[in-house]
Amino acid sequence: MSIALVIPDRDLSRLVAVLKQHLPEVLIEQWPDIKQPEQVEFAVVWKQPAGSLQHFSALKVIQSYGAGVDSILRDPQLPAVPISRIVDPMLATAMVRYLDTVVRMYQLRLDQFARQQQLAQWRPKGPRKLNSMAVLGLGELGQAAAAHFVGEGFSVTGWSRTVKQLPGVQCFAGTDGFSTAVAKADLVICLLPLTSATEGLLNEQQLALFKTGAILINVARGAIVDDRALLAALDSEQLAAACLDVFSQEPLPAAHPFWAHPKVTVTPHISAVTNIDTAARQIAENYRRSQHGLALLHPVDVGQQY
Amino acid sequence: MSIALVIPDRDLSRLVAVLKQHLPEVLIEQWPDIKQPEQVEFAVVWKQPAGSLQHFSALKVIQSYGAGVDSILRDPQLPAVPISRIVDPMLATAMVRYLDTVVRMYQLRLDQFARQQQLAQWRPKGPRKLNSMAVLGLGELGQAAAAHFVGEGFSVTGWSRTVKQLPGVQCFAGTDGFSTAVAKADLVICLLPLTSATEGLLNEQQLALFKTGAILINVARGAIVDDRALLAALDSEQLAAACLDVFSQEPLPAAHPFWAHPKVTVTPHISAVTNIDTAARQIAENYRRSQHGLALLHPVDVGQQY
Repeated sequence: MSIALVIPDRDLSRLVAVLKQHLPEVLIEQWPDIKQPEQVEFAVVWKQPAGSLQHFSALKVIQSYGAGVDSILRDPQLPAVPISRIVDPMLATAMVRYLDTVVRMYQLRLDQFARQQQLAQWRPKGPRKLNSMAVLGLGELGQAAAAHFVGEGFSVTGWSRTVKQLPGVQCFAGTDGFSTAVAKADLVICLLPLTSATEGLLNEQQLALFKTGAILINVARGAIVDDRALLAALDSEQLAAACLDVFSQEPLPAAHPFWAHPKVTVTPHISAVTNIDTAARQIAENYRRSQHGLALLHPVDVGQQY
Repeated sequence: MSIALVIPDRDLSRLVAVLKQHLPEVLIEQWPDIKQPEQVEFAVVWKQPAGSLQHFSALKVIQSYGAGVDSILRDPQLPAVPISRIVDPMLATAMVRYLDTVVRMYQLRLDQFARQQQLAQWRPKGPRKLNSMAVLGLGELGQAAAAHFVGEGFSVTGWSRTVKQLPGVQCFAGTDGFSTAVAKADLVICLLPLTSATEGLLNEQQLALFKTGAILINVARGAIVDDRALLAALDSEQLAAACLDVFSQEPLPAAHPFWAHPKVTVTPHISAVTNIDTAARQIAENYRRSQHGLALLHPVDVGQQY
């Protein structure tokens, strides 16, 4: 009976230390150094190499080390066991803070002034009038973002797979709902899960439904956006600007046109990072639940892919 | 009996229209087209050419068209009449919004990420820990800023000519007080009036008293800062960054090193702009008061220069 951490390319020393405080009696090993794979009952996983979980013959639970599971479900040799994910209230707090900062930055035109600074151009201008916002995806993070901006006085629409009821938010679903949700939005915030239904969703056709001059903020997954269509929409002034924290390939390759595009703000996937302490608590709790046959915290619906 | 607007290089059509609504019976003329200077009893003034008010032989009041009067007092031929200024609650709201946005930008490291974007560098990093702040200058704007950041959970010190009592703010004055006020501040916000006592105040010696790695935000007047000393402090890493909205010369000349400095954020004096409607109301009220011999709103202490 052991726990395997299958989280490549990261320093896990602090996570291991905190997990050992919670579970002193349990063997915790780090992939690829798993001495007895047949002893692994619980795997904490993030962007695992395909097939890396298949030798865990006693595996009971796959625990995502983040809020998303798209990088886990991609594995064609994924064992058919229950999957759970981290739901971190601090993650929502950090995400809302990021979004609020970026929205204020756009209101003040700090993006324009930064561009003008590079050209030594002095062009005073009052704030952008940004009054309406669409939030795509109404999971924990989308709901927190929508509620925050309702409180900030924005007119907020929401769009999700099934229609939600949220105070102060006009909610829509489906293809027709999408165009209504985004039609009047000065800002569109993408917080959708990456699934086969959302991959490439923000393509030329969908971006054309946005209000002319809208600003896109993507803090979900890069692959939801068609990069070429986004660049074309910025160049044609269909969109005024985009702030991107997530990319189809991360790190964003040095040659990618997003880096140099004057209307694109790139941040290196920092909008909301898993907090080790919160994650370790949830991992330990789910481990104990799995040992006692209890329902897991934050189970994933594999059919819906989130 | 007329009002003269002595506000060069600006389109005043909207101000004139709004003032005429408030004072339909009064002749309002724009410098330099003043037909009968001896009829001018009330001058609304901003950055007037030296000597431009001296022919107003019946002048009773000089009304600044902004919160500051430094550009007015510079005139060696300034008539010796009472001076008043605009105190606009919306100005404080706009100023606090600007400061809050810039502080959040620094917390999220958007300045660093923007610099890295220019170099196509992907370097994720968590937020800067900015917990303490010094507010230099505790007039209307300084008090509003200090109160806001106390509410945001910052440890706030304040510094002004005479010691103030403000809830939640540790207040200081004088030379000794200055070093205590800034010694532990992660952020220093300058909202001082420009007077002979504050001109060049933030020089090499004073910047050396800041906490190493502090961030300076100047939204007061450019001449309070010694530009060379600030650049040297940034280059020596005594300061981590500076956000400057005001400059000794505006527009900031294209050759000025602030434009290209990687640690300087330049905005073109947009942190708080006089609102025409608020200003027109106060101007009309002060005009009526001057006609009836009543005390003016927001009088300036010429001895203190603010």
